[in-house]
Amino acid sequence: MARQLNFGVIGSGYMGKAYAIALRALPTVFRLPAEPICDMLATTSAGRAAEQARELGFRRSTGNWRELVEDPAIDVVAICSPTYMHREMALAAIAAGKHVICEKPLALSSAECAEMADAADRAGVCTLVGYNYIKNPATALARQLIEAGEIGEIVHFRGTHNEDFLMDPGLPMSWRLRKAFASEAGALGDLASHIINAAHFLCGPVAEVIGESQIIHAQRPNTAGVLEAVENDDQTQFLLRFESGVMGSIEASRIAAGRKMGLTYEIVGTRGTLLFDQERLAELKYYRADDPPHLQGFRTILIGPEHPDYGHFCIGTGHGFGYNDMIMVEMRDLVEGICGERPLWPRFRDAVHTAEVVDAVGRSQRERRWVKVGESE
Amino acid sequence: MARQLNFGVIGSGYMGKAYAIALRALPTVFRLPAEPICDMLATTSAGRAAEQARELGFRRSTGNWRELVEDPAIDVVAICSPTYMHREMALAAIAAGKHVICEKPLALSSAECAEMADAADRAGVCTLVGYNYIKNPATALARQLIEAGEIGEIVHFRGTHNEDFLMDPGLPMSWRLRKAFASEAGALGDLASHIINAAHFLCGPVAEVIGESQIIHAQRPNTAGVLEAVENDDQTQFLLRFESGVMGSIEASRIAAGRKMGLTYEIVGTRGTLLFDQERLAELKYYRADDPPHLQGFRTILIGPEHPDYGHFCIGTGHGFGYNDMIMVEMRDLVEGICGERPLWPRFRDAVHTAEVVDAVGRSQRERRWVKVGESE
Amino acid sequence: MARQLNFGVIGSGYMGKAYAIALRALPTVFRLPAEPICDMLATTSAGRAAEQARELGFRRSTGNWRELVEDPAIDVVAICSPTYMHREMALAAIAAGKHVICEKPLALSSAECAEMADAADRAGVCTLVGYNYIKNPATALARQLIEAGEIGEIVHFRGTHNEDFLMDPGLPMSWRLRKAFASEAGALGDLASHIINAAHFLCGPVAEVIGESQIIHAQRPNTAGVLEAVENDDQTQFLLRFESGVMGSIEASRIAAGRKMGLTYEIVGTRGTLLFDQERLAELKYYRADDPPHLQGFRTILIGPEHPDYGHFCIGTGHGFGYNDMIMVEMRDLVEGICGERPLWPRFRDAVHTAEVVDAVGRSQRERRWVKVGESE
Amino acid sequence: MARQLNFGVIGSGYMGKAYAIALRALPTVFRLPAEPICDMLATTSAGRAAEQARELGFRRSTGNWRELVEDPAIDVVAICSPTYMHREMALAAIAAGKHVICEKPLALSSAECAEMADAADRAGVCTLVGYNYIKNPATALARQLIEAGEIGEIVHFRGTHNEDFLMDPGLPMSWRLRKAFASEAGALGDLASHIINAAHFLCGPVAEVIGESQIIHAQRPNTAGVLEAVENDDQTQFLLRFESGVMGSIEASRIAAGRKMGLTYEIVGTRGTLLFDQERLAELKYYRADDPPHLQGFRTILIGPEHPDYGHFCIGTGHGFGYNDMIMVEMRDLVEGICGERPLWPRFRDAVHTAEVVDAVGRSQRERRWVKVGESE
Repeated sequence: MARQLNFGVIGSGYMGKAYAIALRALPTVFRLPAEPICDMLATTSAGRAAEQARELGFRRSTGNWRELVEDPAIDVVAICSPTYMHREMALAAIAAGKHVICEKPLALSSAECAEMADAADRAGVCTLVGYNYIKNPATALARQLIEAGEIGEIVHFRGTHNEDFLMDPGLPMSWRLRKAFASEAGALGDLASHIINAAHFLCGPVAEVIGESQIIHAQRPNTAGVLEAVENDDQTQFLLRFESGVMGSIEASRIAAGRKMGLTYEIVGTRGTLLFDQERLAELKYYRADDPPHLQGFRTILIGPEHPDYGHFCIGTGHGFGYNDMIMVEMRDLVEGICGERPLWPRFRDAVHTAEVVDAVGRSQRERRWVKVGESE
Repeated sequence: MARQLNFGVIGSGYMGKAYAIALRALPTVFRLPAEPICDMLATTSAGRAAEQARELGFRRSTGNWRELVEDPAIDVVAICSPTYMHREMALAAIAAGKHVICEKPLALSSAECAEMADAADRAGVCTLVGYNYIKNPATALARQLIEAGEIGEIVHFRGTHNEDFLMDPGLPMSWRLRKAFASEAGALGDLASHIINAAHFLCGPVAEVIGESQIIHAQRPNTAGVLEAVENDDQTQFLLRFESGVMGSIEASRIAAGRKMGLTYEIVGTRGTLLFDQERLAELKYYRADDPPHLQGFRTILIGPEHPDYGHFCIGTGHGFGYNDMIMVEMRDLVEGICGERPLWPRFRDAVHTAEVVDAVGRSQRERRWVKVGESE
Repeated sequence: MARQLNFGVIGSGYMGKAYAIALRALPTVFRLPAEPICDMLATTSAGRAAEQARELGFRRSTGNWRELVEDPAIDVVAICSPTYMHREMALAAIAAGKHVICEKPLALSSAECAEMADAADRAGVCTLVGYNYIKNPATALARQLIEAGEIGEIVHFRGTHNEDFLMDPGLPMSWRLRKAFASEAGALGDLASHIINAAHFLCGPVAEVIGESQIIHAQRPNTAGVLEAVENDDQTQFLLRFESGVMGSIEASRIAAGRKMGLTYEIVGTRGTLLFDQERLAELKYYRADDPPHLQGFRTILIGPEHPDYGHFCIGTGHGFGYNDMIMVEMRDLVEGICGERPLWPRFRDAVHTAEVVDAVGRSQRERRWVKVGESE
Repeated sequence: MARQLNFGVIGSGYMGKAYAIALRALPTVFRLPAEPICDMLATTSAGRAAEQARELGFRRSTGNWRELVEDPAIDVVAICSPTYMHREMALAAIAAGKHVICEKPLALSSAECAEMADAADRAGVCTLVGYNYIKNPATALARQLIEAGEIGEIVHFRGTHNEDFLMDPGLPMSWRLRKAFASEAGALGDLASHIINAAHFLCGPVAEVIGESQIIHAQRPNTAGVLEAVENDDQTQFLLRFESGVMGSIEASRIAAGRKMGLTYEIVGTRGTLLFDQERLAELKYYRADDPPHLQGFRTILIGPEHPDYGHFCIGTGHGFGYNDMIMVEMRDLVEGICGERPLWPRFRDAVHTAEVVDAVGRSQRERRWVKVGESE
């Protein structure tokens, strides 16, 4: 493993730390074609960056993300900043010839996403978007079973991404609730995008949607205690048709009492059904119509070394798989993708589709009709 | 209990037998204002009717339903025949001054339902429609908790009624699959109507819908083995707005592999959430945001004597509640309703709303837009 | 169904009502060789008996159980009185040539049980003991699967019967807590006996045990509010060896917080495992080692018409099965058993074994060693 | 974090890799008083050690564990070798003044364990034994709730550690199945020891036991295909009394079909109950008797930042927690313990108790009676 990949991470919050954990442990978990190095960390101030770099194990730090992006030693730029900054950062990184992994949602609109994907294509750099939940072995297994025909032809998809982190109306305003910083798609952009991406991964692209969104807590206090208007949705729901003709529906909420990580899907086929719930992330439920009638029932498959990726973490089935393990699979994909050993997915180009679905849902609500994904305005 | 109510049941299939079981056991389970009597059974032939009457415990039988409807000794007519016969039978029973309980869906269209409801109103007879699942104590508890404000203001409703009894494409054609006998609403009319009714019961009437339906197995063999076209949907899904403004969605399928009695709902409120699954019919899951943060989680409430109706069947919590027990609650409601001791719900009038929602979903698909429930053509 | 069987029921409490419900509905559910009639009810006063008879649907009543037992019209005596009265009532009924169904536990000791079984054998009457939980279709399926070899050779049995109806230390003294009325086996006699019987049904007779019991709430208030000593155990646990050599364990409690009907068992075999929990009485969980490795997992089988008995109640799988349905299966067994169409189980003779296990657990605690079931004192 | 702790790990199998992953990621997850360094790896051959050291990220390697143990730069020795080697390695490490973490079971008998604990005490080095499952935040929460009185006084404990990795009788002989290498306690020593340790952690030390064990697959093929005798148990079960007087039971199996990581416990108290299952390691079920009667039920608490340790890994409740995360908590405990910032548990001294329980179960089977833990021979 002579080759090294120097990572520069922008942002030291939740995802920045998760990336650092994953990058540190990665070479011990997997045999990799290159060793990822936590090289530089950028946050909004030099002092804070230096302190965080020490804590998270980066060699260098900066209070200016442009410095990181332009540093010749950096091979890969990881963007973990608020959504509205993604475009500028990613374009700068691409311009500097860096490979880029960017947190989701990729940008404020599908147009921005497309601009970023175009730039990456022209520059010939590798990209990946942080739709990390599809990196779960249980979801990889779901895809394997679908491809192997174990549920027959897909008939219906229902997906959710429900959480309740904003259910308390007393929680303060934040950038996530503002149009300029997080787009007018709230739960739709932040959460539904995960399950849209999973639907894409499992059932192919989406052709058409109709939906609606709503704001339940219309105002929240700012830091001065003054109420300000929330500018994007707390909750969304939409019907969809995949390009394959399969029917489906998706819902997402950030105020769904009791749901902590409620990314779920149910995929019904002509010969079986798959059920998944990210709150029990190391299980896949499977009903098989070919079992003898008196022995039929949903079985709970505990993920183990007989399924994708898990065996690198632990040799015992059902011993547990965690959030950061999922991020490690994502980083493994990235490293191997950059080294040409694996196709990358979802790239910026693939995330354009997710963003187009989000945009189409918004338009379908404004125009009260079914909207084709990618339909011109 | 000097008063008696003579029941005449039309149809000796699945529901006819369930009614007979319930009527027989009813006076032992509940203290009733009147004793229901299994008086007469009507099926399509006199011989078959006589045999079935003996087996199910009816005093008399007939091969001609009009004879039953017009018999002066009959107080209540129970209609358990295929959908297309409901209207004629119900109108005849009402004309003869009988109280009527009719299986669901009430009729082939909302117009037919309204005609029947109007006739009943004019005649001043009592009516009930066999949306039996809302008679479950768990669902009665859900309504109690909602009314007591235990989940705060309702924010979202998601309901399903998924089964798989028609998932095998080799199963033969039947009246349920034909427009003339079961309407052009297949799973939509037969199954979604149950969960639409439950939504009505729990969250109030529906104002607007948009949806679509599909036929997956387009042809099925008739008794001669010749393939014939299936004329109504295997599966449906739609978005809805309640009159209260609450957002929701409903789906139903008769080909949902693995689902045997998949009537489920999730009702999210501002302070809690309720989950129900008819496959575990004696449980209600409840999340309460007011629990201390480190002790929060969905709790599984096992239904017992501290909840509605259950104590009449058994004094031990969690000892079990069955399908026929639910029918007994329904019959108890009917008997008490006829005796003026309890408001009846859902009456024919209430089922008009369910039928209007079904009709509106159909129209929303044809016109590819949101349709108001009850919107004039 | 010309033949009739006149039932005389002693006791109008919980079980008396359950019997009445079952007997009333039985002929509508099953095709029976004889019609059971709710003929006479006996309770402790003539007035109360008359009132209850009216409510529960008996033709006649008495305040003197001997009158019932000796009435020539009575064919079957059902004993639903407190345990300490079982022996005298059953012996009188047997002496009068009646068939007898008796609630569990059958008597205060295995010696009493054996005396009752001997009397029944000499008189040639049919007997049945009210271990109703084994009448559940899910448990009948478990036995079918074991007999069909679907889990290979049995390796281990673990059973529980945990409830919490006495967890509140403020609940008053009752006959169940007194040695003279309910034996010195409290939870052991009242609850563990159910799961011992189920173990016997599923895995054969028990050869040896060692266990211990404890009283947690040593005193309870009598009706005058004065604290009195509780005389039998709140909780028990024991290890056992079946005659087959299989190892197992059983526990029971009447103070197990949260358990409402916690009769559960896990039966591990060399090729699979079965799990059952009476709180979800219409499900059986099954793990099959012969499934392909990546598709293995416990499956949840929902009970339906493809399993024993259920189809008589409902034609839809997973539509629900209740406590009183289970009692109906028990009564069906009794009626068919009396008519010679089915072997009865568990008879008085079979309940002797259960009582011997209970006695042996008591002795094993006193002598602090393994005790053979039936070992002479 | 100027201070560094050089780790020398003996063994590069399953646990060796898990330790390496944990040590690498640890400083990024937690703020530590010292930085753990993967310094040296020892396996049975120099070549293999060098290769594995490269893969797992160790600086140095050796084919001779004594070299590692005696290396002056090593601060902590981690022993991940088969059980029979623990004693010799640990004593050598202690003699060299190293801190030691040793995999479980600590040694072949309680006498060996005591010898090792004595040596550590005399040398004044820190020790920890790899009973990693108690490091799970869910179990830490269980202990918190018990200590806070949330379930009242403990009444009963039931624990299991069931897996099925040896259920296939065709699997070959291994050191785990031989008396000389793994003791005569098979599942009892390897698996039950985990749940004994957890019982100790949650309910205090055990005073008395009675149990039995069995070998189901008596012979297994060696590498030449010749059948050899299995020398220790496939399965064990025992009753126990804690020193507190609380009653309990434990079972363990390595052939329990369907169980992959079946470490479970149920702790019943006078005011509530806790349920845990390691197959759903980020959940704790809790029943609270103080809830209003109609709202009582087991709640499923998803572990989050409001519970112990989890927040260092992820800020979102219910986002997942994995096997290697648990090992990181263990290593954090070790590093902080060595730095004097936290009491270490379970130390070698604490594992003596576990071993004494195991020994007592063995003796109770030989002598067919209750045996006091630590009872002299």
